[in-house]
Amino acid sequence: MNAAAWSKDEVVEADREYVIHSWSKQGGLNPRAIAGAQGSWFWDYDGNRFLDFQSQLVNSNLGHQHPKLVAAIQEQAGKLCYIGPNFAEESRARLAQKLAEITPGDLKMSFFTTGGAAANENALRLARHVTGRSKVVARYRSYHGATAGAISVTGDPRRWHAEPGISGVVRMLDPYSYRYPDRGEGSAVYEGGPHLEEILQYEDPYSVAAVILEPVTGTNGLIYPGENYLRSIREVCDKYGIILIFDEVMAGFGRTGELFACNHWGVVPDILITAKGLNSGYVPLGAMTVSAKISEWLQNNKFWGGLTYAGHPLACASALASLQIMEDEDIVANSKRQGERLGAGLAELATRHESIGDIRGRGLFYGLELVRNRETREPLVPFNAVGEAAAPMQRVVKAGMQKGLYLSANFNVMRLTPPLVIKDDEIDFALEVLDEVLTLADEDVTS
Amino acid sequence: MNAAAWSKDEVVEADREYVIHSWSKQGGLNPRAIAGAQGSWFWDYDGNRFLDFQSQLVNSNLGHQHPKLVAAIQEQAGKLCYIGPNFAEESRARLAQKLAEITPGDLKMSFFTTGGAAANENALRLARHVTGRSKVVARYRSYHGATAGAISVTGDPRRWHAEPGISGVVRMLDPYSYRYPDRGEGSAVYEGGPHLEEILQYEDPYSVAAVILEPVTGTNGLIYPGENYLRSIREVCDKYGIILIFDEVMAGFGRTGELFACNHWGVVPDILITAKGLNSGYVPLGAMTVSAKISEWLQNNKFWGGLTYAGHPLACASALASLQIMEDEDIVANSKRQGERLGAGLAELATRHESIGDIRGRGLFYGLELVRNRETREPLVPFNAVGEAAAPMQRVVKAGMQKGLYLSANFNVMRLTPPLVIKDDEIDFALEVLDEVLTLADEDVTS
Ligand SMILES: Cc1ncc(COP(=O)(O)O)c(C=O)c1O
Ligand SMILES: Cc1ncc(COP(=O)(O)O)c(C=O)c1O
Repeated sequence: MNAAAWSKDEVVEADREYVIHSWSKQGGLNPRAIAGAQGSWFWDYDGNRFLDFQSQLVNSNLGHQHPKLVAAIQEQAGKLCYIGPNFAEESRARLAQKLAEITPGDLKMSFFTTGGAAANENALRLARHVTGRSKVVARYRSYHGATAGAISVTGDPRRWHAEPGISGVVRMLDPYSYRYPDRGEGSAVYEGGPHLEEILQYEDPYSVAAVILEPVTGTNGLIYPGENYLRSIREVCDKYGIILIFDEVMAGFGRTGELFACNHWGVVPDILITAKGLNSGYVPLGAMTVSAKISEWLQNNKFWGGLTYAGHPLACASALASLQIMEDEDIVANSKRQGERLGAGLAELATRHESIGDIRGRGLFYGLELVRNRETREPLVPFNAVGEAAAPMQRVVKAGMQKGLYLSANFNVMRLTPPLVIKDDEIDFALEVLDEVLTLADEDVTS
Repeated sequence: MNAAAWSKDEVVEADREYVIHSWSKQGGLNPRAIAGAQGSWFWDYDGNRFLDFQSQLVNSNLGHQHPKLVAAIQEQAGKLCYIGPNFAEESRARLAQKLAEITPGDLKMSFFTTGGAAANENALRLARHVTGRSKVVARYRSYHGATAGAISVTGDPRRWHAEPGISGVVRMLDPYSYRYPDRGEGSAVYEGGPHLEEILQYEDPYSVAAVILEPVTGTNGLIYPGENYLRSIREVCDKYGIILIFDEVMAGFGRTGELFACNHWGVVPDILITAKGLNSGYVPLGAMTVSAKISEWLQNNKFWGGLTYAGHPLACASALASLQIMEDEDIVANSKRQGERLGAGLAELATRHESIGDIRGRGLFYGLELVRNRETREPLVPFNAVGEAAAPMQRVVKAGMQKGLYLSANFNVMRLTPPLVIKDDEIDFALEVLDEVLTLADEDVTS
């Protein structure tokens, strides 16, 4: 169909002239042109190969170009790419039923979007309608997407550039005990419920429609809650009739070594938001899955949401195939097992690299928090570091890239989130490269 | 990959239990299960075939399952489904370059989303950053999508259920001279610029970042502007340094018989928003294309937007193939030619059907406004009619469906928007069915 493939120069040239890239000044960007990808690896036009230790944006959970997933997309493309959301259609109906089966507790009906942000938008609006209330409690260390509603409940500084956002958003602090040691076990913020109670007391608990949070914080620091956190938040929500929304766009579908992150603590939200790992991003897709109670409410009340590509058959078919592959290849178990290998390797690196301040992770959802001083915990680069200030982290990331390991950093935390299909020797390769490049961070240590 | 295909009953049952459908009470919905689609037709499990006179949600411009478009998707699926938006990638770069070539004026760089709403969200935010201002002027008869920002600039009553939305939105009236006869040629609202000037005078023109509008209003009434409208709006925007955003999500890519609706009047926006017809919706995709001046601004200023599936390779490849097909098959010319056939047929129907109040259209973007009385123009059903109040229109739509014609109505306006690949005999079939079913509307005429 298309004309002959372009050369690297043609791709780079047209990209620079015509493509707007996310979250960036376009001038001087110079993005690497990617020629192909397979499994946990991708490569550029000069034959450089990279182990994808990010799963791109933490979405390529089944790795790149999984043959069975590609085949399923090709099959559905030949059958039916699209039909309007007002009709019943097989892939859509099957996926919704499948999600009801595999999501925890009584989560039942699903609405499908094309990504995480729109799914969160629908959850916020639905929670307001179900409760008849308008405020929403959200956390500072969070990212929920870039549309006006989703970015308003986001804490991440990217929100600053979208303000003023929607009204009625109330912030809560995060159970981030490494960075805020006075917020350790037993403290109100660490335990969750007591902190939420205090905030609600000031806000009027009966004015709050929803609490939205990432059960495990992704981009904003790979923060894992303590044992009681989610349960105590759940209890406070129940006490006041507040809808609890878990955003598992990043943490869901095996990323943390359980099918859903909230399964670690046995806590079920009223609304579960997923995307990314739902189909590894082969076709844009997101989902909002709601409790039996909200499903019942929806029988007699109008759902005020929609988009042209809601329940897109090609996307739904790819998710069905993806879930089948996850079962057939025991992907969640591999995530857990390789996560243990990675965790053990990182612990070992910490004995040699003074810049490693904290290691947080389960499954293949790891954060490596780098510091200048283990005693004071001074971060290697400050919060919201950009440009020169971010250089000490960028040096490490760049060196990794030169050695064939695709890394990324958010402020002073490196995110280690390889595809869930990763193999032993690939984990070992990553650990070897990390061992080399962390010496660059060690140079900034001032202890 | 997937298990055996489901029966109709299995699809219907799982859909009812588990799928949340847009803009609806889920109880008693009973959506028809669709088994397949080809060209301008789709069919259910009982062998009923329907001529798709909606192009689903006005996105299936190339019809269903176009073999070359399907092949291009299958080919790209086998090559590279996804790579992160931070990289340069061939399909993405080619599509951006192609859009720069075919969009009017000096429109240049593109940012790709997964649909119309998110593209509008990015346009609004970008306009605020470029101008350093915060207000946005939008029209009442409009739909721009369902995320918090897009729905805030929407006029359509669906907005009511998402309020309060983002702040700073100012409303303008529409050049809808049929329904508001005092708003005819020469009036401020009809001419556009004078009305905008008056609103700006009350709002402070230098506080306004953007004017957003559909050059031809889609869902909210198929309203065509007069000869001077867009030009005079453009002039007022230029006078005050306001960014002009055209939302051509529905009207773009040949729908109106020109490649872009704004080409009819030779007026170029600062930001053009497209989706739907860009790739006929085979894979979720939307685009924001910005002027050379804004492209220049973006070289030195950060673009504060992003989403996981920005510039999705599978989606971009499908759009490239779709644009190639449009050229090869001379789709825009067919839209124009079949639109003339449709228009002539509708004019002829109006001689027999008293319920036809107004016929508005170009290309294959037609609205049929039904009335109880041609003199008073009393609408067949009132604005925002639902349930019983909407029944007189729903009777017509249902009767069409029984005769194999897929129609839809927004309040008292039927939207006639078939695929742009439609053929003479299909237009004739639609006109025959319309001739029959409009007698039902004629029964409500009270002249
Ligand atoms: C936790 C979380 N929620 C929501 C989103 C937004 O998803 P999308 O980019 O598909 O809109 C992201 C994206 O990174 C995320 O990590
Ligand atoms: C003019 C217009 N803008 C924006 C949208 C929203 O697009 P999407 O449903 O892809 O978010 C639509 C959808 O119908 C539309 O008609």
